[in-house]
Amino acid sequence: MERRGAEVVDYSQVFKDAIERLHEEGRYRVFIDILRNKGAFPNARCFAGHNGPKPITVWCSNDYLAMGQHPSVIAAMEEALHDVGAGSGGTRNIGGNTHYHIDLEHELADLHGKEGALLFTSGYVSNEATLSTLGKLLPGCIIFSDELNHASMIAGIRHSGCEKQVWRHNDLAHLEELLAAADPETPKLIAFESVYSMDGDVAPLHAICDLADKYGALTYLDEVHAVGMYGPRGGGISDRDEAAPRITIIEGTLGKAFGVMGGYIAADQMIIDCIRSYAPGFIFTTSLSPVLVAGALASVRHLKASSAEREGQQASAALLKRLMAEADLPVMASESHIVPLMVGCPVKAKKISDILLAEYGVYVQPINFPTVPRGTERLRFTPGPAHNEAMMRELVAALVEIWGRLELRAAA
Amino acid sequence: MERRGAEVVDYSQVFKDAIERLHEEGRYRVFIDILRNKGAFPNARCFAGHNGPKPITVWCSNDYLAMGQHPSVIAAMEEALHDVGAGSGGTRNIGGNTHYHIDLEHELADLHGKEGALLFTSGYVSNEATLSTLGKLLPGCIIFSDELNHASMIAGIRHSGCEKQVWRHNDLAHLEELLAAADPETPKLIAFESVYSMDGDVAPLHAICDLADKYGALTYLDEVHAVGMYGPRGGGISDRDEAAPRITIIEGTLGKAFGVMGGYIAADQMIIDCIRSYAPGFIFTTSLSPVLVAGALASVRHLKASSAEREGQQASAALLKRLMAEADLPVMASESHIVPLMVGCPVKAKKISDILLAEYGVYVQPINFPTVPRGTERLRFTPGPAHNEAMMRELVAALVEIWGRLELRAAA
Ligand SMILES: Cc1ncc(COP(=O)(O)O)c(C=O)c1O
Ligand SMILES: Cc1ncc(COP(=O)(O)O)c(C=O)c1O
Repeated sequence: MERRGAEVVDYSQVFKDAIERLHEEGRYRVFIDILRNKGAFPNARCFAGHNGPKPITVWCSNDYLAMGQHPSVIAAMEEALHDVGAGSGGTRNIGGNTHYHIDLEHELADLHGKEGALLFTSGYVSNEATLSTLGKLLPGCIIFSDELNHASMIAGIRHSGCEKQVWRHNDLAHLEELLAAADPETPKLIAFESVYSMDGDVAPLHAICDLADKYGALTYLDEVHAVGMYGPRGGGISDRDEAAPRITIIEGTLGKAFGVMGGYIAADQMIIDCIRSYAPGFIFTTSLSPVLVAGALASVRHLKASSAEREGQQASAALLKRLMAEADLPVMASESHIVPLMVGCPVKAKKISDILLAEYGVYVQPINFPTVPRGTERLRFTPGPAHNEAMMRELVAALVEIWGRLELRAAA
Repeated sequence: MERRGAEVVDYSQVFKDAIERLHEEGRYRVFIDILRNKGAFPNARCFAGHNGPKPITVWCSNDYLAMGQHPSVIAAMEEALHDVGAGSGGTRNIGGNTHYHIDLEHELADLHGKEGALLFTSGYVSNEATLSTLGKLLPGCIIFSDELNHASMIAGIRHSGCEKQVWRHNDLAHLEELLAAADPETPKLIAFESVYSMDGDVAPLHAICDLADKYGALTYLDEVHAVGMYGPRGGGISDRDEAAPRITIIEGTLGKAFGVMGGYIAADQMIIDCIRSYAPGFIFTTSLSPVLVAGALASVRHLKASSAEREGQQASAALLKRLMAEADLPVMASESHIVPLMVGCPVKAKKISDILLAEYGVYVQPINFPTVPRGTERLRFTPGPAHNEAMMRELVAALVEIWGRLELRAAA
């Protein structure tokens, strides 16, 4: 056969080069192969690079409250599995709208004190689909985006086609400067997070809402690293700070503190109906498995009523921060349950993580660019109610030994 | 507080208008609230608009082979639920890479005879993430897209930033015309589906691959409505036609014939590694729940070895098409398991669907714009191995009665 282009474009070389660039920058990722042991979190088994499964302790899970092993979550999932089966079998519009989905949406609307809620297959998709669709519905809208916003929000904002203005992280003066400079007649949306997952700092919700009121902007808040964990009912920082009524759209995940998988938004019914009706990422996809929805429903209900997990997590985080500080480890200031330990070099961060896994059975993933800025590479610990003091003391002793061995710098 | 913009932009009105437009066009969607009965598919219970649950038969599920109730799928999910818990607790890179994910990726690579495979949270995300990332990795790439491609492929192509050229549906002459007109030195990608889900027709894979060879283009094939159902091992139309080695990237879902939820691609290892390393929609999201992955693994394995479900589905589809044709119902020509019945009017399509549900306990969703072009509104039946002849005769009798009552047009 005649071939006109096959030899002209060397596709393999393009792909090889793309991978080569990652190796050169030291940020080619190798996934660690693990299985957590239900009923015994944070214990897990690790496969890769070992002869058979080896027991490890997981210190970097986002199943922050160990709800992924909670008996009521497991029981609800088992029941749904036996009652209605594995998958939903369709999109929400064509056969995939189950009574579980409707119940969970009511529960989430109530959690955030909003009129309605809408489920997505993930938190990523909820951010991408909602922000891109909102932007398209509001002609000429300018989106004001915190510079540390998550990749899924950045994707949604880009796909909205709107003008984006990035404000310096949590910098209210900069945000106001940008808002004040914009045409008052232009629709505006301020997009930000509550708990920022890599630094563990928290946005000043009321102050941002004050600016939104002053300049007539809508607000979009990602509470992915806060739902289940803050506020008397686990409604997030907006629940704790009683700011929820001031936020136009609250977004959350079912895959972190709620321990399952999926994402959602909560807002006025009219906005929910618009996103439901216009967002391709919501419309054209098989809905969440009813098994997951049942599990999430049990988890949300449990955490609405029980604060024990939240208190356990806060106690664990406070203790680990104290033990690290006492050992002169460079633990970063964090207002939340997230405990970042600064390393400042991708190669060393990876090295510490490798030693912890191989010699101490401790699993904590190094966090490198592009997840955090270059030069701020770190280890990120997420102690939860299931991590006890003995585990923490062992961890800190291991870190101190490695810090000495690698001649790393102590806390300033 | 001083308010500069709040009164200037009337956000509520924008959202109200957006919903109003849908009502005016008769395409505002109301979701039917159902629960399928595991062990008794296609039987289900319907909630909305009735006094309590009412038994119905589902005729529009994409759980095409009823694998969502298969004992080996249920058993595998139950085991994973008890072994490792509800969710993965992290992204693939940070704590969410379980041994189940790795096993399933191997199984899927093998299913399609490819070096590697990569899991995503849905088929939608696999299309969006892969196509957008591929386009970015191949500078100047032109993407040649079949005009009936799915919304998720369209989203991926748009987000790639590449030039898009749309070829008329399954029209090889038009595709060749466009390919021939393009610069031979420009990277090219042909994106298409195998079974088109709303018409049930099938793409000529080898002929398209011939053109790809001739003009040096990569090929991207969405097998979402074919995997599990075609080919000796359920590898899709590319398996049936022995075309898989000629396709660069095969994409599939775990949420339709495999009965669970999730999506994937299969391709050369280098391409898999690129998407794994560069696609935000893969990287920055909680990985699939190990419970779903375990279920999908059991389903893929079962359908690799067993052809009974595929044969049952083909027999059901042939019988339903024959019964409809014999009753002079306007069943559309379809080469696949999909049985579309043309109505040609959104209001009537909805009316028939409403009568079927209210009076006959038959659930089949009307398919309206934008899912299909205006004027081609239809009902879309998906008979499977669990629909028996008695159900089909009842269905056809109901349709004949309604066709008469509404004075609808018979087959041409
Ligand atoms: C701030 C933030 N938003 C959204 C997401 C996406 O949520 P999900 O994992 O449910 O896709 C993540 C992490 O994955 C996140 O860190
Ligand atoms: C052709 C096609 N591709 C992709 C998808 C998306 O797959 P999933 O439902 O797994 O998101 C669908 C339907 O949902 C589809 O019809």
